[in-house]
Amino acid sequence: MGNLLDRINYPEDIRSLDCKTLQNLAEEIRKFIIKNVSKTGGHLASNLGVVELTIAILCVYKVPYDKVIWDVGHQTYVYKILTGRKNYFNTLRSYGGLSGFPKRSESIYDIFETGHSSTSISAALGMSRARDMKGEKYNVVAVIGDGAMTGGMAFEALNDAGGSKTNMTVILNDNQMSISKNVGSLATYLSRIRTDPMYFKLKKDVENMLKKIPSLGYNVSKLLDKLKGSLKYLIVPGMLFEDLGFTYLGPIDGHDIATLKDVMERSKKIKGPILIHVITKKGKGYELAEDNPDKFHGIGEFDIDTGEPIGKKKVTYSDVFGDEIVKLAKKDDKIVAITAAMREGTGLYNFSRVFPERFFDVGIAEEHAVTLAAGLAANGMHPVFAVYSTFLQRAYDQVLHDVCMQKLPVVFAIDRGGIVGEDGETHQGVFDISYLRNIPNIVIMAPKCINEFKNMIEFAFKTDFPVAIRYPRGSDMENIKFQDRGFEPFKIEKINDGKDILIIAVGRMVGHAYKAVLKLKNMGINAGLINARFMKPLDEDGLIGEISKYEYIVTVEDNVSCGGFGSGVLELLSKRGIYDKKIKVMGFPDKFIEHGNVNILFKKYKLDAEGIVETILKMI
Amino acid sequence: MGNLLDRINYPEDIRSLDCKTLQNLAEEIRKFIIKNVSKTGGHLASNLGVVELTIAILCVYKVPYDKVIWDVGHQTYVYKILTGRKNYFNTLRSYGGLSGFPKRSESIYDIFETGHSSTSISAALGMSRARDMKGEKYNVVAVIGDGAMTGGMAFEALNDAGGSKTNMTVILNDNQMSISKNVGSLATYLSRIRTDPMYFKLKKDVENMLKKIPSLGYNVSKLLDKLKGSLKYLIVPGMLFEDLGFTYLGPIDGHDIATLKDVMERSKKIKGPILIHVITKKGKGYELAEDNPDKFHGIGEFDIDTGEPIGKKKVTYSDVFGDEIVKLAKKDDKIVAITAAMREGTGLYNFSRVFPERFFDVGIAEEHAVTLAAGLAANGMHPVFAVYSTFLQRAYDQVLHDVCMQKLPVVFAIDRGGIVGEDGETHQGVFDISYLRNIPNIVIMAPKCINEFKNMIEFAFKTDFPVAIRYPRGSDMENIKFQDRGFEPFKIEKINDGKDILIIAVGRMVGHAYKAVLKLKNMGINAGLINARFMKPLDEDGLIGEISKYEYIVTVEDNVSCGGFGSGVLELLSKRGIYDKKIKVMGFPDKFIEHGNVNILFKKYKLDAEGIVETILKMI
Repeated sequence: MGNLLDRINYPEDIRSLDCKTLQNLAEEIRKFIIKNVSKTGGHLASNLGVVELTIAILCVYKVPYDKVIWDVGHQTYVYKILTGRKNYFNTLRSYGGLSGFPKRSESIYDIFETGHSSTSISAALGMSRARDMKGEKYNVVAVIGDGAMTGGMAFEALNDAGGSKTNMTVILNDNQMSISKNVGSLATYLSRIRTDPMYFKLKKDVENMLKKIPSLGYNVSKLLDKLKGSLKYLIVPGMLFEDLGFTYLGPIDGHDIATLKDVMERSKKIKGPILIHVITKKGKGYELAEDNPDKFHGIGEFDIDTGEPIGKKKVTYSDVFGDEIVKLAKKDDKIVAITAAMREGTGLYNFSRVFPERFFDVGIAEEHAVTLAAGLAANGMHPVFAVYSTFLQRAYDQVLHDVCMQKLPVVFAIDRGGIVGEDGETHQGVFDISYLRNIPNIVIMAPKCINEFKNMIEFAFKTDFPVAIRYPRGSDMENIKFQDRGFEPFKIEKINDGKDILIIAVGRMVGHAYKAVLKLKNMGINAGLINARFMKPLDEDGLIGEISKYEYIVTVEDNVSCGGFGSGVLELLSKRGIYDKKIKVMGFPDKFIEHGNVNILFKKYKLDAEGIVETILKMI
Repeated sequence: MGNLLDRINYPEDIRSLDCKTLQNLAEEIRKFIIKNVSKTGGHLASNLGVVELTIAILCVYKVPYDKVIWDVGHQTYVYKILTGRKNYFNTLRSYGGLSGFPKRSESIYDIFETGHSSTSISAALGMSRARDMKGEKYNVVAVIGDGAMTGGMAFEALNDAGGSKTNMTVILNDNQMSISKNVGSLATYLSRIRTDPMYFKLKKDVENMLKKIPSLGYNVSKLLDKLKGSLKYLIVPGMLFEDLGFTYLGPIDGHDIATLKDVMERSKKIKGPILIHVITKKGKGYELAEDNPDKFHGIGEFDIDTGEPIGKKKVTYSDVFGDEIVKLAKKDDKIVAITAAMREGTGLYNFSRVFPERFFDVGIAEEHAVTLAAGLAANGMHPVFAVYSTFLQRAYDQVLHDVCMQKLPVVFAIDRGGIVGEDGETHQGVFDISYLRNIPNIVIMAPKCINEFKNMIEFAFKTDFPVAIRYPRGSDMENIKFQDRGFEPFKIEKINDGKDILIIAVGRMVGHAYKAVLKLKNMGINAGLINARFMKPLDEDGLIGEISKYEYIVTVEDNVSCGGFGSGVLELLSKRGIYDKKIKVMGFPDKFIEHGNVNILFKKYKLDAEGIVETILKMI
């Protein structure tokens, strides 16, 4: 820790410092973050980009009296450090430690929880309106990136806020990136504001010109009045935001604390909704991250000097998806791929290079992504939307209404299914089986291992209906190698016969269950194991054929128990009138699952091999 | 039918007609629609507004070779009449008859199904990109209202389309309305375009002025060049759309077929995405609807001369919600109400008049509505979002991530839960129990009758956590009056004891089940009946206490069986290790439920009293 940062714990500690000292503090905070995150992992580049911005915000706004809401929330490390959490920062993202996102239970300074994108303006508008109704006075500020601004609900909120007279401030943190480079016409527009000198200089020039023009008679002079009235269109950058009812201030340099403070202070005097456009650099101050912000968006433990990850790199499901989709697309020119600002995370980087004209990054816009896929499919293409489980929640209605109602051949490659670990509550993919299973016409699969995953991808593109494959973050479990029994669509896979109890497991839980079978064997219990493969439609006859051989059955999934795969099995038995089985559903409980290492969480929720064994021993 | 319309069945029949004849045709079509819809019910005002627009579209674009996608789809009556379905138009919305929305199974002219708002630009962009990849040539057109344009995914699609070079056309059908008057800054902006004479006249004036200004030396002349370059900002209305990468054409009179055809024809020559801004009048040509477009948005059978509905008006759940919320809000100033462009439909009209400052119509923007509610709740208010079941699907993630994760006191008044009947697949509210039940921290209730509904509303505002009440379209079932046993939160209600079988029913299905109990009694079967009241959390002890008295149990809900209330009961029994019960889950099957009268549908899916009896007789 540097000398300055040593003495600083709360916003009060920085408000009296002059701007030069604050700039020095910013450098110390950067070093502190890089050092810590190189050990804990986390969102590096975005936090390095907002050091000065956060300092300025904490100088100008008196949190938590003033309310600051951070969109997506992964850029709140500086905020955490400067609001009493510096000394716990080394516990970031670890089980029981600091969350990587705002958490109301963690600090009174965290006033609204975020994690998914584009929610902050809506929340800030709600807080502002509540303030007005209560007759209170304070500032409400939403800090939102240009990437998050492409999310539709941000626009919905701009439209509502811009139509109201409520005082609120939106700080647009424009780093020209979402996770990848930002896309779409809004990005182009912002870039034009940043780079077009006309916007900056025209105001003065036009004024001078108007003075110099000699008298030209009544008509022209009347016209000049009109012209002045409409000068706004010439001299105000950010007219798009003005058209949406916001007062636009900017663009300003987001690494210059003095200017930031000045503009924010001035903005307090303006009535109604305000947008302050701040230009920042993602990864600022750490050259490796500046050059490669994608790589340092979310990162594990890494070497500060080289920027290279520590620990051996294993082949992930995302990697395999990326390879397979390129292979398949070479043979099938109907295959096109869509991402919502997650080209790297979902493994689509290679595809985007090999088939640029068949690759669509739509920005952070999951709803549009799904209906775009529906449109492509309705006109003869076979699109895949690669998306994290938790973000597909955004497009539940589009999956249902636009894809499945028309039974269109769209493939959903659902990455990060099940718990993801360190990102915590907002990112755990533990709802997908439940929210997809109630949608008619969709086929849902989960592979037990990477080999099977390849089969499922291949199968998905042979169909002419909606197919979802949900697979976990990371790689296959070590020390397990499943026998290759081939892949038969719509059928369960029997891993081994048994006698005392049947385990039916989903996806990576087949690995946990397999270990449980071995442990049980050592205890003299003979457990059968089925890989479910299809969550929907269930292989009804296959399942019942196996179930009928046993008295005791457990289902195991890394999804909430509520409405998930296990429920589907219960529904099946009820439908078929099979009432003599003792069946138990294992999955995550009906709560949001906190952050922490995946293995710790599986252990805690008794979904590792030991937990499965424990449950079974209690049953029989 | 008029003389002209008699001879017209397909788009080919109108393309050779001159504009004057087409205008006459438009009048005949209006009369035809008014006459038919006065009998079938349906979406009247929006269809009367697009008669000329639809005629022009069908003259200019060669459907189905050219692709026309209608946003929300309820304004496709003219399209249906002119694409071979005139003679079936009297079957509109009835079981087995024409759908009130585009249906691919109904006609090759319906190329993409819609029903929910704001999907058309995404779908059209997908179709356009597919066309380009296949090397095909035709026009792809999305027709979208200014109301639907406030939906976030429309903006996501504009952002994506505007950033691409794809040829596609968006026709913005601007009638200043969603269902109610359109709201937000976009509406203000569009109104400025429509009314500000500067936009229309400045171009010519400025050109004249520039010619008149004498030579003023190098600097000024350089400046004038700059000025010319930026003239676009002065002379182009719709700059917001230009900023988003679209070529803007308009505004044009949407009832003038000649101009419409002319602009559309010219637009075909422009490369890249185009937006044609068309001004129409909702309800056009039927004075009663012009004056009161809300009332004639969706309407049942009515008298053409008076505009009054035929058949006696019963008190609906929406009415009761509206009355109760006003009563409660008078006593509790924390209560605020939110609608997504459904003030009338959800019963909030009175609230909006009594408490204008506590009422927020956010436009068609369900995602924002929910997170706005979260923001209000996080800052001390107790908001209710009144919304149709099917539209809340749009905000699944916001309910989960923004409200329930923070356990905020937001009330969801979910109208149109269960089947709604004539609106069909896109509007049946048969998924809500399933998609809400998997979300932690939410409480879900359904009232069996209006009396109980009042208790539930009152209870909801006494809590400090998220509460959903789902209730049906329309009114209480006739001929049933339940005894008032009071309301105990989180507890089941026993309607009657029994012996041979226990029926556990949800919401209005309690009525059907009650009738079934009476029928069974006549057959000598003694059925017990439980009103579930709470879908989540289940009254575990109460349910198990009752269930333990029976061997046979059926659950009955007007939701899909998949992952719904019945599944919850199965999960409960499994969790508690109760394996000796014979239990059957009754609900809608795993498919989209077609349009038609509610009673016909309940009968078809065996969820009326007779169906319940039949199922029970098969069981025992």
